[in-house]
Amino acid sequence: MSHTFTLAIDAMGGDHAPEMVIGGLALAAERHPAARFLLIGDEQRLAPMLRRQKRAAAHCTVRHAPEAIPGDLKPTAALRLRGASMRVAIDSVAAGESAGVVSAGNTGALLALAKIVLKTLPGIDRPAMAGISPSARGDLVMLDLGANVACDARNLVEFAVMGDVFARTVLGLPAPTIGLLNVGAEEMKGDERVRQAADVLRESYLAAQFHGFVEGHDIAAGTTDVIVTDGFTGNVALKTGEGALKLISSLLRQVFASSLAARLGYLLARAGLDRLREWLDPRRYNGAVMLGLNGVVVKSHGGADAYGFAHAIDVGMDMVVHHFNERMREGLARIALPQALGPGDGSGNGHGSPRVAAAR
Amino acid sequence: MSHTFTLAIDAMGGDHAPEMVIGGLALAAERHPAARFLLIGDEQRLAPMLRRQKRAAAHCTVRHAPEAIPGDLKPTAALRLRGASMRVAIDSVAAGESAGVVSAGNTGALLALAKIVLKTLPGIDRPAMAGISPSARGDLVMLDLGANVACDARNLVEFAVMGDVFARTVLGLPAPTIGLLNVGAEEMKGDERVRQAADVLRESYLAAQFHGFVEGHDIAAGTTDVIVTDGFTGNVALKTGEGALKLISSLLRQVFASSLAARLGYLLARAGLDRLREWLDPRRYNGAVMLGLNGVVVKSHGGADAYGFAHAIDVGMDMVVHHFNERMREGLARIALPQALGPGDGSGNGHGSPRVAAAR
Repeated sequence: MSHTFTLAIDAMGGDHAPEMVIGGLALAAERHPAARFLLIGDEQRLAPMLRRQKRAAAHCTVRHAPEAIPGDLKPTAALRLRGASMRVAIDSVAAGESAGVVSAGNTGALLALAKIVLKTLPGIDRPAMAGISPSARGDLVMLDLGANVACDARNLVEFAVMGDVFARTVLGLPAPTIGLLNVGAEEMKGDERVRQAADVLRESYLAAQFHGFVEGHDIAAGTTDVIVTDGFTGNVALKTGEGALKLISSLLRQVFASSLAARLGYLLARAGLDRLREWLDPRRYNGAVMLGLNGVVVKSHGGADAYGFAHAIDVGMDMVVHHFNERMREGLARIALPQALGPGDGSGNGHGSPRVAAAR
Repeated sequence: MSHTFTLAIDAMGGDHAPEMVIGGLALAAERHPAARFLLIGDEQRLAPMLRRQKRAAAHCTVRHAPEAIPGDLKPTAALRLRGASMRVAIDSVAAGESAGVVSAGNTGALLALAKIVLKTLPGIDRPAMAGISPSARGDLVMLDLGANVACDARNLVEFAVMGDVFARTVLGLPAPTIGLLNVGAEEMKGDERVRQAADVLRESYLAAQFHGFVEGHDIAAGTTDVIVTDGFTGNVALKTGEGALKLISSLLRQVFASSLAARLGYLLARAGLDRLREWLDPRRYNGAVMLGLNGVVVKSHGGADAYGFAHAIDVGMDMVVHHFNERMREGLARIALPQALGPGDGSGNGHGSPRVAAAR
């Protein structure tokens, strides 16, 4: 099995696994004729499904690992399950058999396993989780979405480098603009951490792409193609935006069901409303990516269906095909981090100036 | 002029001042027959407006202070403008002439002036900015919205106490539920700071109301009546939610304008759609409140119109009429902060365990 376009697929992770995994593979196989999948899970359950999905089967090699990591298992406990499907999938990336892994399983376990087994890229202090969001000006990339609740200026700069490469690779933008999330757009706003990161970016090879500070409303407005923030804020912002969209969708459904006239109104405006719903469909944005590791790691939403899981595979394939990590190495080599930001220990444990520094 | 129901109104702050201030006063005077307003601004500009707004005029005493604090002036510079309308309004609260102040002027200046002139309530380390947001289960209170970019566990506990009293006073809830914003609902999620604050709240007089951790999507879902977070996260979450709603509104407008059938569809569903728009109207949520000070301080959005400004006055009047600060003192007397969280220096400069502590 060739390494280059092979993705390891965790068949056992996710609420609807392995059925939705096989369904997703069938969709993805159609879209990526050159792709190969190392499908890792319970062979006896997978075999009959693959017999029904000929196209998926033609792209697959199955490896038997029937054990799934439970969704509520703590990462430290997950590290001990060496035979679990997720672990075997990650091991195949470490061994060079696969270029990346896609899993809808336990997020904390995936993060911990990927960090420990794959290790971070040289020059990366801590990996980050990135995702794609809809905005008024097209799709954008946001990171970190929760891999690191505490970040320092150095981490934020690294996230900007990673976000730039991700937006080039997956969104196909030649020179993505980059914004640093803050409580105001003015230079003196926020804390020491974001101001330091902004200073470094203004002097870096990313200077021309760096827009400066952006605020919460700039996410939906799509003011920049990449939004950089710490994992606490990013996680809250992502879920807040999703929550607001969900609220509106549900209120609109109520409005259109509230009377016969409203139902008729819905039918008349249906084409546009359906396009809007499709565009905002969270399945279209499924696939958060762990950046900064030696290998491509894509996390599908645990509740994803086949359509959503196929999208997570798409993201992984885009990264593999466009040599994401080679481009990351190039970016990291070009960014000059000032001594003041600290050396980075690559331990993934963080260090340096905390958010509170500005207020002390 | 009696102190009890008197609000000082900064007539010169805001993009459309003083016209929208007078318009707002006229609306508010109708709703609060017992209210008195100390209107502070340029007498010569205000006089002809008040002649046209008899009802507003009947509730007003005008004090001449023609100078407005520019919107982009730094707080430190604003502190020197002792004759500015905003400063004179805050001084009238400090002097006991007014129970509170409403201004649509420079937020940073209002924060700094209120802190320095009015001082924090005994037991409050740092004042917070709170606001009302729509949710699937009714209006909720969120704080801090940006007064403190860095917060420790002690601050978060104080915000919970303030949020509880605010939700009782302004939303009229007998026992508001309280959630602490985090990256996950499980007890071990997040950083030391939020976990410490949760521990204290679980042992406090608020235990029965404390729901535990909530996530970004819980804001729109209205999982709790009060959402407590640090000023950085709260500011980003507020603006992210607003941005998402604005995006959907604009996309819906496009959909309904996209064809003749869609236009007709809009007309048929109009009653419900208009109700929805009205409910989500940001003017209905205008009036962020600075809590924890010796006096009621309400910040109207700078771009507010008369309708929005009247709502900010409503919020101020609710707090004054329901003796907000007396109830705050009661709540603060009941919360027992463990020694471990530090004494609080009342300086508004913060201290204690930074967010990064958990990752060290």
